[in-house]
Amino acid sequence: MDNLNTEKKAQRKSSALKEEISEFKRERIKETACHMFYRDGYEATTIDAIAKQLNVTKPFIYSYFKNKSELLFEICNTGVSLSLSAINDIDALPKTPAEKLKLAVHAVVGIIISHQAYIVVYEREEKNLDNGLSRLIRQQRGLFDHRVAALLESGCESEEFTIKDPVMTATTISGMMTWVAFWYSATGKWSESEIIAHVMTMVSAVAGEKMASR
Amino acid sequence: MDNLNTEKKAQRKSSALKEEISEFKRERIKETACHMFYRDGYEATTIDAIAKQLNVTKPFIYSYFKNKSELLFEICNTGVSLSLSAINDIDALPKTPAEKLKLAVHAVVGIIISHQAYIVVYEREEKNLDNGLSRLIRQQRGLFDHRVAALLESGCESEEFTIKDPVMTATTISGMMTWVAFWYSATGKWSESEIIAHVMTMVSAVAGEKMASR
Repeated sequence: MDNLNTEKKAQRKSSALKEEISEFKRERIKETACHMFYRDGYEATTIDAIAKQLNVTKPFIYSYFKNKSELLFEICNTGVSLSLSAINDIDALPKTPAEKLKLAVHAVVGIIISHQAYIVVYEREEKNLDNGLSRLIRQQRGLFDHRVAALLESGCESEEFTIKDPVMTATTISGMMTWVAFWYSATGKWSESEIIAHVMTMVSAVAGEKMASR
Repeated sequence: MDNLNTEKKAQRKSSALKEEISEFKRERIKETACHMFYRDGYEATTIDAIAKQLNVTKPFIYSYFKNKSELLFEICNTGVSLSLSAINDIDALPKTPAEKLKLAVHAVVGIIISHQAYIVVYEREEKNLDNGLSRLIRQQRGLFDHRVAALLESGCESEEFTIKDPVMTATTISGMMTWVAFWYSATGKWSESEIIAHVMTMVSAVAGEKMASR
């Protein structure tokens, strides 16, 4: 019985490892494709070229992604899906709306900086997505803005914030964070933590936060 | 003598009209190309297709633009060049920094809304610009941010604003305005004047404006 359990556990472990490796390969393909789409554009990049860059065969890539269009969708969806899951996690914490908003800005600007090419490829290549997929991403972006707006509204109720129009202010806050992807440079004069601190100050200001430190 | 003057004046007038017509034609080509680049992408759009859309010949287009690349540059340069000239005009007015900033936001968000496709094409297709031309536009964007930063600094001196880092705040303000191009919809729930008023409130907030009305 013990032996059987050990064997089952080992099997489970090996299948978990297999999944991890598979996930790792998928991520590496996505990452390479993203940087090639960023550098050369979606239309100019072939699956052949991506395979060559990774030193693998075309069928290897097709075993992870149905086609180039699915790859583009996964790349475009990355930023919003990470940001949504971050704000959901933060929302569940026992903190005040102002504290949650700060944590969310920290997490999301971090995601935007570490996934800069993904965000830029999305903004540039959205027009190449199938309508349905493009709508799906827009819905998720809407959901993210909605979460931010809800946070702003509870902050108004708890009297931490003063905001006239939480929905429009949420759109502006999303924009202030996304905008970083368009100008951040790893070799630029501002470090990641300086940028996060700055966006945090700006967000506090537009949220009309009481005792916002300037 | 009088006759000669009248003739000269008439010549001048007709040459001015000629220039206006030429400018009008140039603008129409630019506008059509911009909307086709917006809809189909720069690479997928040929000079042939632009000529067809305008119901003119290819040589007609080449008499106004050397090549497709020059057309792209002119399109990409439109937003920043209009915005720079607006802020220069406003800067020359006998007003306080806070008043000038409000006028600038009004003018620039107006430009961004009326030239939405130009801004989006620039962000999407910048990678297709020659390096030198791309640098030229970036320099002008830098100059624009610099003007905003200078306005913020004089506002701090006149004690209308409270800002820790005017340069970074100027980048954020430019971003807040440009961001409108990425989500504005003529059929959306917010009118142009509502959006301008909202961005104005947000800009006042990040500038730490005294007595900012919220």
